[in-house]
Amino acid sequence: MSIITVSREFGSGGRELGKRLADELGYAYYDREIVTVLAEKLSMDETYLERILEKKMVLPISLTYAQTFNLNNSNLLAQQHGIIRELASQEDCVIVGRGANAILRDRKPFTLFVYADMASKIARCRSRAPEQEHLTDKELERKIKLVDKGRESNFALFSPVAWHDMCNYQLCVNTSGTEIKTIVPIIAAYAQSWLERNHI
Amino acid sequence: MSIITVSREFGSGGRELGKRLADELGYAYYDREIVTVLAEKLSMDETYLERILEKKMVLPISLTYAQTFNLNNSNLLAQQHGIIRELASQEDCVIVGRGANAILRDRKPFTLFVYADMASKIARCRSRAPEQEHLTDKELERKIKLVDKGRESNFALFSPVAWHDMCNYQLCVNTSGTEIKTIVPIIAAYAQSWLERNHI
Repeated sequence: MSIITVSREFGSGGRELGKRLADELGYAYYDREIVTVLAEKLSMDETYLERILEKKMVLPISLTYAQTFNLNNSNLLAQQHGIIRELASQEDCVIVGRGANAILRDRKPFTLFVYADMASKIARCRSRAPEQEHLTDKELERKIKLVDKGRESNFALFSPVAWHDMCNYQLCVNTSGTEIKTIVPIIAAYAQSWLERNHI
Repeated sequence: MSIITVSREFGSGGRELGKRLADELGYAYYDREIVTVLAEKLSMDETYLERILEKKMVLPISLTYAQTFNLNNSNLLAQQHGIIRELASQEDCVIVGRGANAILRDRKPFTLFVYADMASKIARCRSRAPEQEHLTDKELERKIKLVDKGRESNFALFSPVAWHDMCNYQLCVNTSGTEIKTIVPIIAAYAQSWLERNHI
């Protein structure tokens, strides 16, 4: 099975790059889909669950309810972990975020990290913001840093090596000022050639 | 002018990648050549000069001699700095190491970082070692770490951002278990496309 994991700074275009790589290579694409499966399994609201998983929110539900279903953040992350491993064993796929590069280390995925400078991330976030969102650059910067802080600390649960350390990855791509679609064919070719060399 | 800078961990194959990129793209290649020019300018022995520049050795020469020629490590690095800027303004080129990515920041070079895991770096160093060198893996690891420590602290003279921080670079390539020549065409194509987009 060929697996590509895409880790990404918020606003760097990693999600778009992951989706386009999957399309280019004819691989399955998993991102929010992972939360959908988990939400269904737990009969929980998907948006609410995603917020808990990404931001390490404390579950604001009664202790009795939480105990009945054995729900807490690490339990939810462990269940997500299981779903990621299950999905990745079914078909060639691209998995975005969720520490998949560490969770699937033994399956030798091609591990990509996508990042950009703050100005580019702010510009990208602004161009994709819902119409009713009116954040200043300062507020957007704060939001970007907050989301990445959450990703960083979630990743630390699976890996002794820091999220931002390049040695976790096969390739790290700086997308500052780059239109994502222009780099898709070349990144896809690099990943495919790496996967061929490493899965004989 | 199109400039590619290659920063690299010792033993990662960065020098080979830089040379092959220059050949592939028909660019000039500067690495040791920079020290040659500086050694000629100062009438100093090249090997000796390189050792001082890379390892931050204290100059073991008489104070009078050093004062006459205004020689000290930071002065030598400043002179090297000047040579790098001069060479980079003459023709399209690949420059390996020497903090060129920071020194030439205003010229918008395509900045590449090449790294690998310790096992790969040890294997590469062993395969290229002179016949009379018989270092154990532990000794090789110590040597690799020492050289990179020197590069790290030299880089800190030119840049507030750490040498190993990916935000210094457009692309970071992990060469663990990779035969360098297999990735040359694809890295060359990526660099060229980036340079075309960023130097209109």
